[in-house]
Amino acid sequence: KNEYRIAVIPGDGIGKEVMPEGLRALEAAAKKHRVKLAFDHFDFASYDYYEKHGQMMPDDWKEAIGGHDAIFFGAVGWPEKIPDHISLWGSLIKFRREFDQYVNLRPVRLMPGVPSPLAGRKPGDIDFWVVRENTEGEYSSVGGRMFPDTDREFVTQQTVMTRTGVDRILKFAFDLAQSRPKRHLTSATKSNGISITMPYWDERVEAMAKRYPDVKLDKYHIDILTAHFVLHPDWFDVVVGSNLFGDILSDLGPACTGTIGIAPSGNINPEGNFPSVFEPVHGSAPDIAGQGIANPIGMIWSGAMMLEHLGEKTAADAIVKAIERTLAERTLRTRDLGGQADTTACGKAVAEML
Amino acid sequence: KNEYRIAVIPGDGIGKEVMPEGLRALEAAAKKHRVKLAFDHFDFASYDYYEKHGQMMPDDWKEAIGGHDAIFFGAVGWPEKIPDHISLWGSLIKFRREFDQYVNLRPVRLMPGVPSPLAGRKPGDIDFWVVRENTEGEYSSVGGRMFPDTDREFVTQQTVMTRTGVDRILKFAFDLAQSRPKRHLTSATKSNGISITMPYWDERVEAMAKRYPDVKLDKYHIDILTAHFVLHPDWFDVVVGSNLFGDILSDLGPACTGTIGIAPSGNINPEGNFPSVFEPVHGSAPDIAGQGIANPIGMIWSGAMMLEHLGEKTAADAIVKAIERTLAERTLRTRDLGGQADTTACGKAVAEML
Ligand SMILES: CC(C)[C@H](C(=O)O)[C@@H](O)C(=O)O
Ligand SMILES: CC(C)[C@H](C(=O)O)[C@@H](O)C(=O)O
Repeated sequence: KNEYRIAVIPGDGIGKEVMPEGLRALEAAAKKHRVKLAFDHFDFASYDYYEKHGQMMPDDWKEAIGGHDAIFFGAVGWPEKIPDHISLWGSLIKFRREFDQYVNLRPVRLMPGVPSPLAGRKPGDIDFWVVRENTEGEYSSVGGRMFPDTDREFVTQQTVMTRTGVDRILKFAFDLAQSRPKRHLTSATKSNGISITMPYWDERVEAMAKRYPDVKLDKYHIDILTAHFVLHPDWFDVVVGSNLFGDILSDLGPACTGTIGIAPSGNINPEGNFPSVFEPVHGSAPDIAGQGIANPIGMIWSGAMMLEHLGEKTAADAIVKAIERTLAERTLRTRDLGGQADTTACGKAVAEML
Repeated sequence: KNEYRIAVIPGDGIGKEVMPEGLRALEAAAKKHRVKLAFDHFDFASYDYYEKHGQMMPDDWKEAIGGHDAIFFGAVGWPEKIPDHISLWGSLIKFRREFDQYVNLRPVRLMPGVPSPLAGRKPGDIDFWVVRENTEGEYSSVGGRMFPDTDREFVTQQTVMTRTGVDRILKFAFDLAQSRPKRHLTSATKSNGISITMPYWDERVEAMAKRYPDVKLDKYHIDILTAHFVLHPDWFDVVVGSNLFGDILSDLGPACTGTIGIAPSGNINPEGNFPSVFEPVHGSAPDIAGQGIANPIGMIWSGAMMLEHLGEKTAADAIVKAIERTLAERTLRTRDLGGQADTTACGKAVAEML
């Protein structure tokens, strides 16, 4: 199969500005490498849609995009107009959970031309993956409030870890580690403080490790692990964490490589029972939206991850190469990276490299 | 009052090695500044005690140390011999909770002589406080496991936030911010993902902010906040977070200033109904224990925080000054900071500066 139907959802804010550049790169790579991509565009999962319809997505959103081979997604959220826990839980978190995208995968890689905030690190020094559980854990919907508006008021929210949920993300992470030259997996825990769920996580890690004797395993509590990201980013190869810990590490990691502006991510259902979602790590960034200055690299790189997921590795690699060559030229970089290009110019540069 | 009874608990691992240096500095500062300190030594809250007695602390631990003016604590934990969630929950977490030490306070300060892993940052550039809720939140004891040893197995653990618990830590943080020249408070949240407890945290932050119109308030989700610690550590003045978020930020912050090896902390009951505990941020570090190479600065600086808490600001400031002058000399620093001194030599150097 080399024909794919892609659902395109730009979302909010700069999502709308980087999406055309993501598509431009995809089209260029597809043409060159004889992949056929058909794009269907959707306006939901955005504040505009919410304003008109009172909900983030139509009732039949699952039918609308559930049959596509993948979903190419910009960014959602506009905190000044709608609380994040409504906009996100009404869209992105729904995709993840209802399409069972239990893997959130993000590369942490120091790229040429992107200055690291860490002293003395150069491209090649930092190159690892964060594998995040993406459907359960700390992002649960069980909990509530009691004694509202009194001094006794309290809220609770459960962290939920199932054996199914924990084992499948660990398996994915061990498999990924096993496929890499270093065969090194780091597990993020906090079993010394979070005394019920995190010891369980550790227990499942130990159990799974027995099946991967060739993978070097270590584990760190999340507090010291964030410290090691800054002090020793070269230690890591594949890092696996719960929903919340993975979320933190996959923003911190890209920050250590200079910017979260270029980081891509995949929300993946490895079995292919449902479409996976590919989106840049940066959000909708309302503060810079509409100025044409957003960095499109995160979106474009997400397109490469999508192609790789679809099995089109050659086309995917071509995009990553084009990104690297674009970033290496100061004039082609956007301003957040000390360059001069606007969103379109940077996107066009990548497409031309292709 | 200038006479204080201090309970001294070295604990495990390097806790035992840095404690004598902490006491040496305290004694020197006390002598110089006419403060009277009486030390009572306790061997519990350690693996040695556990091995003998089958529990981390005696049944009457509260009577033993509850009447002291403060507790000076080394470090506890020895994961190879006893799981952290047993050793810690049987000691440190008990102190925090049963002595109602609801504030965990940690400075993040780039010191002379300590190279920052961040490019281009120098002493003075990074100087803020992390205020962490220390008794509830994610560190709860509510939860459990169902369907053990089956495929349906799952565990849950509740995050619990009470109005009392949230409001009092916010009040402490706003008060601290108000007392500083920049009057700037940053709240760590994750209300876009943790959809029940974190929106509640935000709600209480907004309510409390009304009482501090002169404090500049901002809030960031924990993922991007960790990124900003690396990219813009100069943005922060006082940062407040839940138990877990504060834990993460107060390891990450010191890492950004070069090492967690020198960071101090206070577990504080601001009302003085119970003694507060002062301890270095680093743990018991079994891997380097017994070699005499541990950095004693975290312990010594914790002593300064203790003196300040007791109202002895002059003596406290003198210790911090002595630390700065010691760190500035390479030969007086321990090896983890590129120096040559062992634990004792470094500790003696600080005491001599006093
Ligand atoms: C040892 C552990 C339970 C503890 C915590 O998480 O509170 C430590 O990391 C700390 O920050 O004091
Ligand atoms: C927007 C938010 C709910 C989301 C998350 O926390 O998962 C984002 O931070 C991410 O990492 O995709």
